[in-house]
Amino acid sequence: MSFNTFGHMFRVTTFGESHGVAIGCVVDGCPPMIPLTEADIQGDLDRRRPGQSRFTTQRQEPDQVKILSGVMAHPETGVQVTTGTPIGLLIENTDQRSKDYSEIKDKFRPGHADFTYEAKYGLRDYRGGGRSSARETATRVAAGAIARKVLPDVKVRGALVQIGPHKIDRAKWDWDEIGKNPFFCPDKDKAEFFETYLDGIRKSGSSIGAVIEIVAEGVPAGLGAPIYAKLDSDLAAAMMTINAVKGVEIGAGFGAAELTGEENADEMRTGNDGTRFLSNHAGGVLGGISTGQPVVVRFAVKPTSSILQPRRTVDRKGADTEIVTKGRHDPCVGIRAVPVGEAMMACVLADHFLRDRGQVGR
Amino acid sequence: MSFNTFGHMFRVTTFGESHGVAIGCVVDGCPPMIPLTEADIQGDLDRRRPGQSRFTTQRQEPDQVKILSGVMAHPETGVQVTTGTPIGLLIENTDQRSKDYSEIKDKFRPGHADFTYEAKYGLRDYRGGGRSSARETATRVAAGAIARKVLPDVKVRGALVQIGPHKIDRAKWDWDEIGKNPFFCPDKDKAEFFETYLDGIRKSGSSIGAVIEIVAEGVPAGLGAPIYAKLDSDLAAAMMTINAVKGVEIGAGFGAAELTGEENADEMRTGNDGTRFLSNHAGGVLGGISTGQPVVVRFAVKPTSSILQPRRTVDRKGADTEIVTKGRHDPCVGIRAVPVGEAMMACVLADHFLRDRGQVGR
Amino acid sequence: MSFNTFGHMFRVTTFGESHGVAIGCVVDGCPPMIPLTEADIQGDLDRRRPGQSRFTTQRQEPDQVKILSGVMAHPETGVQVTTGTPIGLLIENTDQRSKDYSEIKDKFRPGHADFTYEAKYGLRDYRGGGRSSARETATRVAAGAIARKVLPDVKVRGALVQIGPHKIDRAKWDWDEIGKNPFFCPDKDKAEFFETYLDGIRKSGSSIGAVIEIVAEGVPAGLGAPIYAKLDSDLAAAMMTINAVKGVEIGAGFGAAELTGEENADEMRTGNDGTRFLSNHAGGVLGGISTGQPVVVRFAVKPTSSILQPRRTVDRKGADTEIVTKGRHDPCVGIRAVPVGEAMMACVLADHFLRDRGQVGR
Amino acid sequence: MSFNTFGHMFRVTTFGESHGVAIGCVVDGCPPMIPLTEADIQGDLDRRRPGQSRFTTQRQEPDQVKILSGVMAHPETGVQVTTGTPIGLLIENTDQRSKDYSEIKDKFRPGHADFTYEAKYGLRDYRGGGRSSARETATRVAAGAIARKVLPDVKVRGALVQIGPHKIDRAKWDWDEIGKNPFFCPDKDKAEFFETYLDGIRKSGSSIGAVIEIVAEGVPAGLGAPIYAKLDSDLAAAMMTINAVKGVEIGAGFGAAELTGEENADEMRTGNDGTRFLSNHAGGVLGGISTGQPVVVRFAVKPTSSILQPRRTVDRKGADTEIVTKGRHDPCVGIRAVPVGEAMMACVLADHFLRDRGQVGR
Repeated sequence: MSFNTFGHMFRVTTFGESHGVAIGCVVDGCPPMIPLTEADIQGDLDRRRPGQSRFTTQRQEPDQVKILSGVMAHPETGVQVTTGTPIGLLIENTDQRSKDYSEIKDKFRPGHADFTYEAKYGLRDYRGGGRSSARETATRVAAGAIARKVLPDVKVRGALVQIGPHKIDRAKWDWDEIGKNPFFCPDKDKAEFFETYLDGIRKSGSSIGAVIEIVAEGVPAGLGAPIYAKLDSDLAAAMMTINAVKGVEIGAGFGAAELTGEENADEMRTGNDGTRFLSNHAGGVLGGISTGQPVVVRFAVKPTSSILQPRRTVDRKGADTEIVTKGRHDPCVGIRAVPVGEAMMACVLADHFLRDRGQVGR
Repeated sequence: MSFNTFGHMFRVTTFGESHGVAIGCVVDGCPPMIPLTEADIQGDLDRRRPGQSRFTTQRQEPDQVKILSGVMAHPETGVQVTTGTPIGLLIENTDQRSKDYSEIKDKFRPGHADFTYEAKYGLRDYRGGGRSSARETATRVAAGAIARKVLPDVKVRGALVQIGPHKIDRAKWDWDEIGKNPFFCPDKDKAEFFETYLDGIRKSGSSIGAVIEIVAEGVPAGLGAPIYAKLDSDLAAAMMTINAVKGVEIGAGFGAAELTGEENADEMRTGNDGTRFLSNHAGGVLGGISTGQPVVVRFAVKPTSSILQPRRTVDRKGADTEIVTKGRHDPCVGIRAVPVGEAMMACVLADHFLRDRGQVGR
Repeated sequence: MSFNTFGHMFRVTTFGESHGVAIGCVVDGCPPMIPLTEADIQGDLDRRRPGQSRFTTQRQEPDQVKILSGVMAHPETGVQVTTGTPIGLLIENTDQRSKDYSEIKDKFRPGHADFTYEAKYGLRDYRGGGRSSARETATRVAAGAIARKVLPDVKVRGALVQIGPHKIDRAKWDWDEIGKNPFFCPDKDKAEFFETYLDGIRKSGSSIGAVIEIVAEGVPAGLGAPIYAKLDSDLAAAMMTINAVKGVEIGAGFGAAELTGEENADEMRTGNDGTRFLSNHAGGVLGGISTGQPVVVRFAVKPTSSILQPRRTVDRKGADTEIVTKGRHDPCVGIRAVPVGEAMMACVLADHFLRDRGQVGR
Repeated sequence: MSFNTFGHMFRVTTFGESHGVAIGCVVDGCPPMIPLTEADIQGDLDRRRPGQSRFTTQRQEPDQVKILSGVMAHPETGVQVTTGTPIGLLIENTDQRSKDYSEIKDKFRPGHADFTYEAKYGLRDYRGGGRSSARETATRVAAGAIARKVLPDVKVRGALVQIGPHKIDRAKWDWDEIGKNPFFCPDKDKAEFFETYLDGIRKSGSSIGAVIEIVAEGVPAGLGAPIYAKLDSDLAAAMMTINAVKGVEIGAGFGAAELTGEENADEMRTGNDGTRFLSNHAGGVLGGISTGQPVVVRFAVKPTSSILQPRRTVDRKGADTEIVTKGRHDPCVGIRAVPVGEAMMACVLADHFLRDRGQVGR
């Protein structure tokens, strides 16, 4: 069972609520002898951090990570390395504004987990969404930064490829653009368009969905395992755990449903360094096992459910009512899902890598 | 770890190859006192069975299931019931035609798992695809039939909603049509169209993809658990383990990316028997927990990779070559995925039901 | 969760009742390319097989194992090898004598699981003990035979070291004697004594307990993992799952409670091939990780609860009554636990080996 | 896999080293609506806390626990309750004396995990034993305090029943004495003897082993599950994960090996409130399932390996040397294992309780 844990060999257990004291996680199964400092983790956290543009929530959280365990100075080199024991990570909450919760305390916000948590547990932490808040994903990003170090030869990158009905032009894909706009968008022109488009969404008090694509390059052939430990099955599960995600696809994905066998199946030819596929409709996975091509995953993020427009709902006592969700929210929560998706990809790959190669470094 | 097992409380472990002696599974965690005979399982197996129309593989397998353990006549009533101990199920392979494998033994079929199994294990069972064959899914369907009995008030049904670029007309959806055409298609007119359309595909030696939708009605609110045991995450993982599946979506799915917050978030009103949602973009899951509405999952199935047209590939020695995959194949492997998808849905729901209610019947 | 599964990377799932159609198991996670035939497994099964002397149950079961999946002839060598896919094993029950169950059907046999199964499940398979019968251990022995092949350099052997209050003389330990008496006893003189002693027990319709010791030689240093995956913790769990086992100890075990620190802690010296311990009170495990010394586990087996002397008990309706358990039983069920203990040791070691080295052969 | 996690439904993941910043754990699966404050946990921690008598290590740690997540004031009652989300617990290390580690940094202490951690990971945290220190058990005790609250009708108590060769007189067992002496000893006279006896051990710079008994009363019949989720198997695994434990037994334990069937099997009679057993050699478990009688587990703790007498060992470079382990140590580390054993018992029972009854409170 794994309510708040994911992974088998590379295992991440997270805890913490949006407006609690702190959030954190325990990364178990990381091999020893990997150089690791807080700075290694902070970089990824900073990419996910809120409040960096007007297109994400204005909550101000420094998201400073502390390593509580699992590392030490190497006895000979003095370099701080992992020891093979669990790595405890802590991020304090600092901007959990002591706001007035009366509006949401007794009403179920449509599209949120309010109703279902209440149905399951009989109560819910209404303060900022409690455990169901996207704030939890900060701990995944921290774990993902460690996962990346387990896979030194694998490069995991993500991009926003669609907002609302507007898709990027794939011919203009430029990874270098990702860091130059507030959308992680690889298409420079579309990024400019998104700026205007999202301003309109934001000012109208609405929100909009998005599609994110994560690509892992350098994944060796042979990762994953039939039948129920398929690499793509684990990736689908991982992405679907991210807040607001409603769909996941690998390679050609839903597009594969429209293809014929000869269009879809990637042909092969001998290359200089092994087998070469002539296309990658498979998204780097066949039969649940990696092909050696880039692993390509896309996921759809629904629009933020917290909007300024009044919505019909019911309250905890079962009476009809209306709700307006004020407060600090992302007009397009999909944007900040990019580093989260990268982290999940990195964690899944690290997990499978360790399943195949064993948990020990030596 | 679960290479060939899925589920936690309702656990299914499968074994067997396409052209081996037999396939089978062990269903562990089934509560006691549930009436169960082989006939209860056979019905679902018959719906998945190959060779029932010209649109599926012509392999003839009776798929007769034997219960090897886990049931006994109730001491008082004499009715055969489950005992709470593991249920062993066996299906013998009878039509594993002793064919000539020389064409595929040393060549990697594009789109198949041949290359990746070889990359992982150093060898592969080339006889009918071995373990990577869709034949394995028969055991899932058998397990799913038992899962259905764990959930007497839940109705799980599946339908084919798209072949190639052709989607059904949802206004014409009629569950009664499902059993009247060889496609599990709920749109009578589209089913007639598919007949002609697929004949063309079949005769040209090609194949085509499809999209399947599985709907579970009667699921109580509160099933599933944050954060990494989300009901939709488990469903995504389950569907993605089905052969040839490349995408999974819940409710509005990828369509949610194109919606605004006010379009997407399902409003609520008080109904006669509890809370009523005014729409179901969520697909019955919010925050990973069921809402009480129908749980709706769709998945995309790629076209069968075995086609009669020559394709470029490499052989085990690394030389360039071509391959034509003769033999008995489904022109649209998505069709028979309908009962398999139902089985996976039933198993995931049974698993979550037992997580919440405990494994014991009393 | 693992009701009927043990292990993580080397996973064994068993099923079947004493008087059902068949018993069997699925061995998942076995690396590919390991030569494996039914004969490799049959040898260990024959050692556990009942009816081989007057000191074990007279039930006659050939215990012929069938491999249903997971092996194939190697494409080049033709040798039958594992493929990395799950190995299904089946053993048919042939001597499930259609006896009169009226005596035990409604009464709880003291010392048996009758009462607890009924308390848990509301019914129990009274035919030969159903799932709680030691017959289930045949499938473990089969799995253990495969585990041994995963660990070619490890030798796992077991011995009976005590029956009732009578312990063997360790100075007379001779592994060669194990196969020469019906008790797996390494002390020739004590084996002769046991023959007379057990005849007395048997003729009086009584039964007696025993202690078994399992030794694994050739285990490399570094297997196991802190804190909750300790090798000795997994061994203790494994042995305690064997029917009738009530105690487990590693190395000096309970004797360590009586030792001082200087007596107990094994000193070290440099040897020709690495570190050498001057004693092995640790039983080959320190901090949950193997030391490279022999891993030594002992477990206590309670006397068979089925005896010919009348015992006070209650029936299913809650009334006081008496019971005499006729039928075929082992006067000392500990004897046949020797190959079972070996199998569990082999499975645990294989599991840890694969955790550390990964599941793949290449 | 669970290197640093135990339990399935009630899951505890621990982290932290002896001389690191902090230790802590995440308790996952705790049902909602259970009143819980730090004070509820602190009581058990205080019982395990070092430095409370001259018979335990003189390290001074307040062991103040902080709850980081998983609780909130109930919206109606204002009482702080669990929410069903993971409970993060943190205990800061305050007395990790910056001592001179040169003596142990490069030498393997006999009886410690130094050699095996180094064999496995290539390095080890030599500062106070790092992760292998008994300090980790503080987090278990904290988790156990929560487990107790999951089981309001179960009373879990532990006692020290043997030090060295000296066993308590069971006729003198008085639970009230447990809190009145520094040994958790239920035999007043023996406790007085232990005071003198242990002073001798301590002053000679030696150490001694012990045996601990844990008793759980009020456990309902029917907890546990065949075959590999047996309650006693899980208890054996749990106890064997405690530092320095070398043996575990249930009920009559190793003594059962010396009994005949009629002596060992507990007879039954009808009582006022259900079935009554006339003895409890089974220790409350038959066939891996609880009988409703007290669950009785004993475990042997080896003597502290850190002693003041010089011992032969090797260093990291493979050279022969000697070592004297100075510093603050428990002359009988078994004493403080009493609350740890209680915690493990409580956690295992809570885990099985939730497996059977489900994870949700409603």
